[in-house]
Amino acid sequence: MIERIAILGTGLLGTSVGLALRAAGFQGVIAGWNRGPDGAQAALSMGAIDSIDPDPLQAARNSQVALLCVPIYATLDFMEKLSPILGSEHLVTDVGSTKAQITLAAGRLFNTPERAAFLPGHPMAGKERGGAALGDANLFRGAVWLFTDDAAWQRSPHSAELVKDWREWVVAMGSKTLDIDSARHDELVAWVSHLPQFVATALSALLEEEVGDAPELKDVGGRALREMTRLGASPYSMWRDIAYTNTEAVQTALHALEQRLAHLRENLRTPELRQEFEQANRFRQE
Amino acid sequence: MIERIAILGTGLLGTSVGLALRAAGFQGVIAGWNRGPDGAQAALSMGAIDSIDPDPLQAARNSQVALLCVPIYATLDFMEKLSPILGSEHLVTDVGSTKAQITLAAGRLFNTPERAAFLPGHPMAGKERGGAALGDANLFRGAVWLFTDDAAWQRSPHSAELVKDWREWVVAMGSKTLDIDSARHDELVAWVSHLPQFVATALSALLEEEVGDAPELKDVGGRALREMTRLGASPYSMWRDIAYTNTEAVQTALHALEQRLAHLRENLRTPELRQEFEQANRFRQE
Repeated sequence: MIERIAILGTGLLGTSVGLALRAAGFQGVIAGWNRGPDGAQAALSMGAIDSIDPDPLQAARNSQVALLCVPIYATLDFMEKLSPILGSEHLVTDVGSTKAQITLAAGRLFNTPERAAFLPGHPMAGKERGGAALGDANLFRGAVWLFTDDAAWQRSPHSAELVKDWREWVVAMGSKTLDIDSARHDELVAWVSHLPQFVATALSALLEEEVGDAPELKDVGGRALREMTRLGASPYSMWRDIAYTNTEAVQTALHALEQRLAHLRENLRTPELRQEFEQANRFRQE
Repeated sequence: MIERIAILGTGLLGTSVGLALRAAGFQGVIAGWNRGPDGAQAALSMGAIDSIDPDPLQAARNSQVALLCVPIYATLDFMEKLSPILGSEHLVTDVGSTKAQITLAAGRLFNTPERAAFLPGHPMAGKERGGAALGDANLFRGAVWLFTDDAAWQRSPHSAELVKDWREWVVAMGSKTLDIDSARHDELVAWVSHLPQFVATALSALLEEEVGDAPELKDVGGRALREMTRLGASPYSMWRDIAYTNTEAVQTALHALEQRLAHLRENLRTPELRQEFEQANRFRQE
């Protein structure tokens, strides 16, 4: 049923969705737009999109599905602009990392019988570096793709069909879908996604200060150090909006970890250390 | 020149050394001992050792090189017992993760013209789980193998030759050797090895508390979460001795990270966050 998709933002995620849709057998047209022309050109030459559209709003209007793959505030901005120009024959969906504000806007601006549907989505997949060139048809394979859909929304039958179809394409790209309340989503990802990122950033920044002047010493840490700091390469440009839109939950998680580290530091020579290792071991049990 | 090696402790590291020596073309005899009979049997059946010796002291006496692959306090204990029964025709070396106490004991108990040589060593390689069954001939490939040798030690020409030979085998196993002062070693590994481990333990233990009752939510975190908590599976039995013998340096590192996390938490909405990300990015630059 979906014959034309517009991907707005052909960075790592947008390009990967284009490639994954093709790999999953999507036969329709994929139009693309990107703020910087290089990213759009790269996505085009990789076959992730069929054409570059200079006007993102027009691209969405000409498609049945518009997929927003831009930072969170840019997503909210697009939502304001798309709401008045799209109708019940359209679906807009996104990949933003926090969902409370976007889901609130989705209820305010979309999801009535007359308006376009908006399906708030969040694939738990990515890389520590962005950009179209790293786009990967297998990025979503085995990943969880979260949706914070609201059962109270009244969509037109047509746009409800588009929602159903898009969910099927998400599964076809190799992801497992999971529906979750938007507030619970933001709380959960603060623990399992944002906290690991901010820890890796803090650890990397600290180690840059301590051993950054002796690059040969970075090798000493080996695989363990490489893994624990890989996310240190993540760009501020993406995480700024996450920090802004999930501040309280991230603060709670960071504060809890600070206390946990202090507890461990005070118990390096007590039996409490065994408790901590055993509890950590349980988290890693299959 | 080295024709007989005794590996005392055939866990992950001991077994891997046996396998790596064979892969590198070592033609001599490799005798093995392990506290638990299962580990010795596994190492034997994997071809990491040629025979199981019931008496570790006797095994060392019958070999030119004794390699201690046991926890740190067990290493110190072996050093006390081996010193009086070995002579200038022997080399003892180890793989312990902290080096100040072991290097001190090496000067007190070994490394005179009449006594055996002791070469304190530390391969920066391992896995989050131990045991002979995970032994791997390639474990040391590309790793840094640290030595905290002391230039002031006066060894017999014969044992000095054994030291030189053992260093060549370490290179043959695929490692890059690096000599470092023992105090500096312990300080350095507190930052690049022990801190990442204790952070992974604290993070895993915390997440077990927060999301451990909903195992399906662990999948949500994806690769990033898996990497940041992989070391959470590390056993207390190994890390206890490290925490005991490098307490102060680990406390310093943990405290510095706690402060860094608090700084980040207080600046989620300020331009300071950009600074932190940019400093972290620098650490991950090639």
